[in-house]
Amino acid sequence: MAPSLLTTPSQALAFLTPGARRRGSQPAPPRVYFSSARLPRHSALRVRASVAIEKETPESEPPPTFLREDGSGAGSGSVRERFETMIRRVQGEVCAALEEADGSGKRFVEDVWSRPGGGGGISRVLQDGRVFEKAGVNVSVVYGVMPPDAYRAAKGAAGKNGAAEDQKAGPVPFFAAGISSVLHPKNPFAPTLHFNYRYFETDAPKDTPGAPRQWWFGGGTDLTPSYIIEEDVKHFHSVQKQACDKFDPSFYPRFKKWCDDYFYIKHRNERRGLGGIFFDDLNDYDQEMLLGFATECAGSVVPAYIPIIERRKDTPFTEEHKAWQQLRRGRYVEFNLVYDRGTTFGLKTGGRIESILVSLPLTARWQYDHAPEEGTEEWKLLDACINPKEWL
Amino acid sequence: MAPSLLTTPSQALAFLTPGARRRGSQPAPPRVYFSSARLPRHSALRVRASVAIEKETPESEPPPTFLREDGSGAGSGSVRERFETMIRRVQGEVCAALEEADGSGKRFVEDVWSRPGGGGGISRVLQDGRVFEKAGVNVSVVYGVMPPDAYRAAKGAAGKNGAAEDQKAGPVPFFAAGISSVLHPKNPFAPTLHFNYRYFETDAPKDTPGAPRQWWFGGGTDLTPSYIIEEDVKHFHSVQKQACDKFDPSFYPRFKKWCDDYFYIKHRNERRGLGGIFFDDLNDYDQEMLLGFATECAGSVVPAYIPIIERRKDTPFTEEHKAWQQLRRGRYVEFNLVYDRGTTFGLKTGGRIESILVSLPLTARWQYDHAPEEGTEEWKLLDACINPKEWL
Repeated sequence: MAPSLLTTPSQALAFLTPGARRRGSQPAPPRVYFSSARLPRHSALRVRASVAIEKETPESEPPPTFLREDGSGAGSGSVRERFETMIRRVQGEVCAALEEADGSGKRFVEDVWSRPGGGGGISRVLQDGRVFEKAGVNVSVVYGVMPPDAYRAAKGAAGKNGAAEDQKAGPVPFFAAGISSVLHPKNPFAPTLHFNYRYFETDAPKDTPGAPRQWWFGGGTDLTPSYIIEEDVKHFHSVQKQACDKFDPSFYPRFKKWCDDYFYIKHRNERRGLGGIFFDDLNDYDQEMLLGFATECAGSVVPAYIPIIERRKDTPFTEEHKAWQQLRRGRYVEFNLVYDRGTTFGLKTGGRIESILVSLPLTARWQYDHAPEEGTEEWKLLDACINPKEWL
Repeated sequence: MAPSLLTTPSQALAFLTPGARRRGSQPAPPRVYFSSARLPRHSALRVRASVAIEKETPESEPPPTFLREDGSGAGSGSVRERFETMIRRVQGEVCAALEEADGSGKRFVEDVWSRPGGGGGISRVLQDGRVFEKAGVNVSVVYGVMPPDAYRAAKGAAGKNGAAEDQKAGPVPFFAAGISSVLHPKNPFAPTLHFNYRYFETDAPKDTPGAPRQWWFGGGTDLTPSYIIEEDVKHFHSVQKQACDKFDPSFYPRFKKWCDDYFYIKHRNERRGLGGIFFDDLNDYDQEMLLGFATECAGSVVPAYIPIIERRKDTPFTEEHKAWQQLRRGRYVEFNLVYDRGTTFGLKTGGRIESILVSLPLTARWQYDHAPEEGTEEWKLLDACINPKEWL
């Protein structure tokens, strides 16, 4: 993985910070933002932070599109436009499926926001339902200009052409869109799901019109159970593999390993869960093919996850099962706060904290020196997190 | 604050990683360590990690001293020796006072370990008592040689003499000792306490015997309530001020501000709690005076904290009070995992994870977009975390 390029699209997404128009039952609380004087001193971060801290504006309704007709891609049939359409459709489908599975009549609370520089987003959160403890499904579509330094970082890692002319390049137009979601059910036998699909473009710098446009896809879907129910894990991975195999037989093994490598809690020598697929900076395939692949993966979330939830949402459990789930939730917190690139970048650059940390579980637990007894169900889960398995 | 120097003593303490001899009721679970192949690639970290990952050895009993008579300071009346005596005495006094306040008959579980390169430590943890959810009190005394790079980092920040001769210096003898503790009570009206006092020395590099020995003191005691009970906060701060005033009238205001600045959760624009005192890299006073000051501060933990616990441990509370405490515990987790230097360094360098993360609460909570209503008791606490107050 090429770190600078890798992080650039993620970072662009990390500042997609929703504002505050809400429907649903909760009143809008006061929001506390922090001043730009508190931004990190590291120069690369400072440069990007100057993009990141642009204030979002609350909107009363989601617009038909976040794109504009003045060249940002609206009405053009462009990849940007089709990607936005796809993630907004998937957001709707996933939220509808989750509300139905939850069965409490509780609805997602929605925040819509726009970004003065271009674009906006829609955050949806369902909290304390019957089945779901906390479920967040966010989309964002932002564009504008990146500082030249950030562009050079991305370009350098993309790597093919020499960087001489880039040195004098001005601000670079960029586009970033994504859907991002974490779903934490209450029942310890119902697994947590995370998915995220994103598309990123940079355009030619304004004073070097001949330079090529660049684009990348990234994303993945991964499962974090507290207990291994083989039927569920196999079902989940087989849906991922089916989606991958429609495009390239090398995708599933490659992205399955990438997922195991990415969701690694170094200080524990454990993965966060039982994996799935993960990829980033993907641009070495046909662009239409990758758009189709991201669409297929995002569309696979409901069939991969909802059948598992339906089977496990009412499974009887003990206090011990719940305590173990809570300990595993602690690991989820450790991964997200210490390693996850989107989260750590978002915290450093002053994104809207509630949106960034919606991925954290409602409750978590840290017990001193807990270690499950060998051979128990808890031990089996831990073992599979330490030694990733092939599920198919 | 001078970051490189500041972190050096903390980093030296961060790898004081206890092993596994235990008394008390819990069986010793299997321990999972991670391989050195997983260490971070950053060169400065790699250098220090080569110190950090030295394996600790479990010991059956605490030795009379962790020092050796061959020059590490035993029997010499040295500051090292007196500091070790002090922190071990304080560990005993604090644990005895906590067990008595807990009143459940539950005892601290003890881990004793030694470090092949020199020194060792004693970890004590009391979990799920009647009053305390989780209480950890650790001491460690380690010494050996630091790689030249780490020494140069410390020296550079200490800063007075030119660094020319350091460039050819060999490994540098160092000594680091400290007591570190986090106490999380169950009752939402009983505050969390953290304290840590440490002493650090580097000796002359082996091939430059004329170079001066350097030493520093660091530490602090701070209070993290979920509700402001003015009587308690005033009592706590006045004990800190009394300890400070015995040595220098400038200490309390200076170290009170340092504490507010250090325990700052940037991404929330909140302090973790209501502060106390904090200092680091202190070497610009008489060494005996600072040893006396650290001793006074550590000795003030019991009178500062136990009366508050006695008053609040049985205060009636509702589920709402408990939920708010759990949200504040979530902030404690955020600070420790994202900002605390000892924790973040320990995670990066492969210290014993259970010892590093014993500071985390047993349980914590993250609720999307929670904001207390203005004027409520919860709002008052949050306001005091955003706008630090003078309590005396």
